[in-house]
Amino acid sequence: MKRNLKLILEYDGSRFHGWQYQVGVRTVQSVLEEAIMRLTGETKRVTAAGRTDAGVHALEQTVNFNTESSHSPQVFVRALNSILPGDVAVVDCREAEPKFNARSQAKAKIYRYLIYNLPNRRAFGHPYCWHIPEPLDIEAMREAAKYLIGEHNFKSFQASSRDNLEKNPVREIKRIEIKTTELGYVCFEFEAKSFLKQMVRNIMGSLVMAGRAKIRPQDMEQILEARNRKNAGPTAPSAGLYLVKVFY
Amino acid sequence: MKRNLKLILEYDGSRFHGWQYQVGVRTVQSVLEEAIMRLTGETKRVTAAGRTDAGVHALEQTVNFNTESSHSPQVFVRALNSILPGDVAVVDCREAEPKFNARSQAKAKIYRYLIYNLPNRRAFGHPYCWHIPEPLDIEAMREAAKYLIGEHNFKSFQASSRDNLEKNPVREIKRIEIKTTELGYVCFEFEAKSFLKQMVRNIMGSLVMAGRAKIRPQDMEQILEARNRKNAGPTAPSAGLYLVKVFY
Repeated sequence: MKRNLKLILEYDGSRFHGWQYQVGVRTVQSVLEEAIMRLTGETKRVTAAGRTDAGVHALEQTVNFNTESSHSPQVFVRALNSILPGDVAVVDCREAEPKFNARSQAKAKIYRYLIYNLPNRRAFGHPYCWHIPEPLDIEAMREAAKYLIGEHNFKSFQASSRDNLEKNPVREIKRIEIKTTELGYVCFEFEAKSFLKQMVRNIMGSLVMAGRAKIRPQDMEQILEARNRKNAGPTAPSAGLYLVKVFY
Repeated sequence: MKRNLKLILEYDGSRFHGWQYQVGVRTVQSVLEEAIMRLTGETKRVTAAGRTDAGVHALEQTVNFNTESSHSPQVFVRALNSILPGDVAVVDCREAEPKFNARSQAKAKIYRYLIYNLPNRRAFGHPYCWHIPEPLDIEAMREAAKYLIGEHNFKSFQASSRDNLEKNPVREIKRIEIKTTELGYVCFEFEAKSFLKQMVRNIMGSLVMAGRAKIRPQDMEQILEARNRKNAGPTAPSAGLYLVKVFY
């Protein structure tokens, strides 16, 4: 019997060359497909909600794949967790509708970006955040973020390599929340139906420029309107980025 | 002018083959000595309070070394942090008395051991804790720990390889504290003037046996009295162990 299974996957992206299968490098898709093969004997392609870049983490990446195996979802969780390497874990597994597609049917996604904002760097956590030693003006970043809420052409924040350009760079950001946390961390949350490639990291580069008074918050409006990647700030490091949740 | 400097060092031990210099492998001592060499041009041996094993972490390892450099301690902090790899950080640097020796003058040390005690493993933090999926009886572990407080012959908990055996395996444990924390972690703190090699990890192996009802708490007394490594539990993984503080 052909079944469609939905997996929730957590991974520490620091030792992966991103989600997507590539010959000769360690990707999350590769290790998951290999684990499924070892469990079921089937060579199956898996589909993920978000194809995270090298170094990007996931708390609830959502994946689906077809199988003719008769194992229960609970057995999939336990068995895959015993096969998968320590930096990937299956959090949940359920039966899905035959037509469920983790990528095309995602209704919204939440990404988180973590900055460590104390003067001295730490030995722990450096693959899990962006260390900025200079103090950040949180209010200026909140002000700058407001210009990005709603539907806009985000071409200025789209990855600049040619093969990443999408025909329609219009996206709708529902929410950007910025929280300071204990121990010097600043946590950014972004919610949208979908994001352009590297959009969150490119926005982060500009928000940090506002936080360091390199631009004024209201400059975000001109950056958006320019529709040119060169007008926005640099791409923030992948280490600080987490795919937090996918809604269907 | 010859000076003696005291450094406080933090490191993520997961990618190191321990503290101590060894030919051909990455150790914390090697990368620190190399960084000092690059900064001062001097090849100096550094002395650490605790020679942590491969995979063991440190929050406040204490180190001293001689130098004829005229850089201020503040310059040492900044410059070493810019040279050292991301998983080692200098937290503090001060002038010390000419005779200060980080190893021989330590008056007490605190080690911490972290267990993750929920059924499903996680993708994050696996190099930083010991995952035990079965529920642990915290009270039984506290009861078992009581037998270890005070001065005892800890031969049963000493690393069994021959070159690690010390003539006098008597040590005094001042404190063992066990706290359950949010999100499923259990945190153990050990304080003593000094510890035998692998003593904390070997004690952890036995405490976990008590926590899983494989032994009774009062069996700790016979394990101690046996003065035989074979009577105690297995060695707990190094990933969960942290050198937290050194007192002088």
